[in-house]
Amino acid sequence: MDLTEYINRRKQQVDTALDQLVPGAHKPPQRLNQAIRHSLIDGGKRLRPILLLACAEAVGSATDKLLPFACALECIHTYSLIHDDLPAMDDDDLRRGRPTCHKAYDEATAILAGDGLLTFAFELAARPIEGVPASASLAMVVQLAQDAGIHGMVGGQMMDMQAEDRPVELAELQSIHIRKTGALIRASCLAGARLGGGEEQQVQKLKRYGEAIGLAFQIADDILDIVGDTALLGKSTGQDQQHAKATYPALMGLSQAREEADSMVSEALRCLEDFSEAADPLRALARYITDRTH
Amino acid sequence: MDLTEYINRRKQQVDTALDQLVPGAHKPPQRLNQAIRHSLIDGGKRLRPILLLACAEAVGSATDKLLPFACALECIHTYSLIHDDLPAMDDDDLRRGRPTCHKAYDEATAILAGDGLLTFAFELAARPIEGVPASASLAMVVQLAQDAGIHGMVGGQMMDMQAEDRPVELAELQSIHIRKTGALIRASCLAGARLGGGEEQQVQKLKRYGEAIGLAFQIADDILDIVGDTALLGKSTGQDQQHAKATYPALMGLSQAREEADSMVSEALRCLEDFSEAADPLRALARYITDRTH
Repeated sequence: MDLTEYINRRKQQVDTALDQLVPGAHKPPQRLNQAIRHSLIDGGKRLRPILLLACAEAVGSATDKLLPFACALECIHTYSLIHDDLPAMDDDDLRRGRPTCHKAYDEATAILAGDGLLTFAFELAARPIEGVPASASLAMVVQLAQDAGIHGMVGGQMMDMQAEDRPVELAELQSIHIRKTGALIRASCLAGARLGGGEEQQVQKLKRYGEAIGLAFQIADDILDIVGDTALLGKSTGQDQQHAKATYPALMGLSQAREEADSMVSEALRCLEDFSEAADPLRALARYITDRTH
Repeated sequence: MDLTEYINRRKQQVDTALDQLVPGAHKPPQRLNQAIRHSLIDGGKRLRPILLLACAEAVGSATDKLLPFACALECIHTYSLIHDDLPAMDDDDLRRGRPTCHKAYDEATAILAGDGLLTFAFELAARPIEGVPASASLAMVVQLAQDAGIHGMVGGQMMDMQAEDRPVELAELQSIHIRKTGALIRASCLAGARLGGGEEQQVQKLKRYGEAIGLAFQIADDILDIVGDTALLGKSTGQDQQHAKATYPALMGLSQAREEADSMVSEALRCLEDFSEAADPLRALARYITDRTH
């Protein structure tokens, strides 16, 4: 299968849905909606929504009806970037090849744009979905809130900040990443499988697939921060070293980090063994994560 | 009926539930959970959860099962206070008689504490409720997200900030307050009525009751900022004049503002005409709002 074609098609689908679902830039309060669109529209790889749609596809589900929930994942991801970039946090100027939200607008607007996106995500996630029992939707909203919240992304960002400028061991680094990026990636796969009507065993396999590629993705990201190119990535590289941040390559060396990422990708592929060719996009996505690092 | 006794009893019920539901201060990340508890626990009038419980009572529902949703309202209210108090926003040092979250901790922690509380609110709101259809819960999560979001609280705060330091007319002031504080108060009443199983006509009456007291509450708040006492209110007074903010008393004079608040309270009481004595707490709560201003 042609992964680039697949990603482009899914990305187009998600971009169109986001544009339609999110309030227009002309709607009041205009500055808020413009700031939200600045950070959300036409940027980003849409990894999380694409994973949701590909997991739904893997269990044989239609995907259009899941677009609002898929967009909710991107709203949560984008809100977290806006807030993480704030001066009080990571203090970044560049994101997705453009000025960060507080640079393009101002700090107060960026805080509110993040709050608005996070809240809007739950409005989208709680929409009734054709053929999905309301109780299943409700359970997935709870799961999403847990993975995005105090024990998930928010907690992970807090732990990440507390770990700056002091020695961090591998176990702690792992525990930070599982929360900060892993939880939402796992939730994307879980939601696609569950809301797509997958059988319990399939759901558990795809959840584990999500865990494995979430970790692979983070290791790859750390590696790309060292070997990547600012223009290609659309964000500043060398940031981790500059901030003396603990990363996988820093803790285990570049080649060991690559091996660890490869091993996670193999684990992800094993989770897909019982799936038909409907899971081919998931297989290709898993391989793609580490291809970028070699 | 004895309103003070009623409020104290309900407040106790809400405080106990919050303490049990929110992660403990010893749980990691500790600093985050401590910051959340600093702002959330043992502070605040708990107006929104109490309104929810009183509306559920008015339609003859049990209230214990609604405590998680009631606590979700308080989490959203508290997150909005934490973020509004930030230096980039209203830059306040004192809240509920204590240092604001970013003063007691730091800005990054306060941003994350707000994010964590907002996310946790949806975890609570989406919990299944005994005897309530999952579809009704789901619809109420959507409603809550709308009232807290871009077209509700978040949008209202944005409009409020944009209105600073320039002349504002009454219609704009009203439109800001309906979003910034009115929407969540209305949502509290609506949720109590709907999740409590009220008939459609009762639900609509209590929603309108919530709208009216929301407005009355905001006018009263503006008045108390002028005539109130810092020690009693637990927050700085005279802040509005200091920031040259548009307020009801500033736009229509103190006595006219009092009349407007009284008229809103009368409207709220009219909405309760067809209710039994089970709505007495709601009647007393409405009267109490303006009692404080005379």
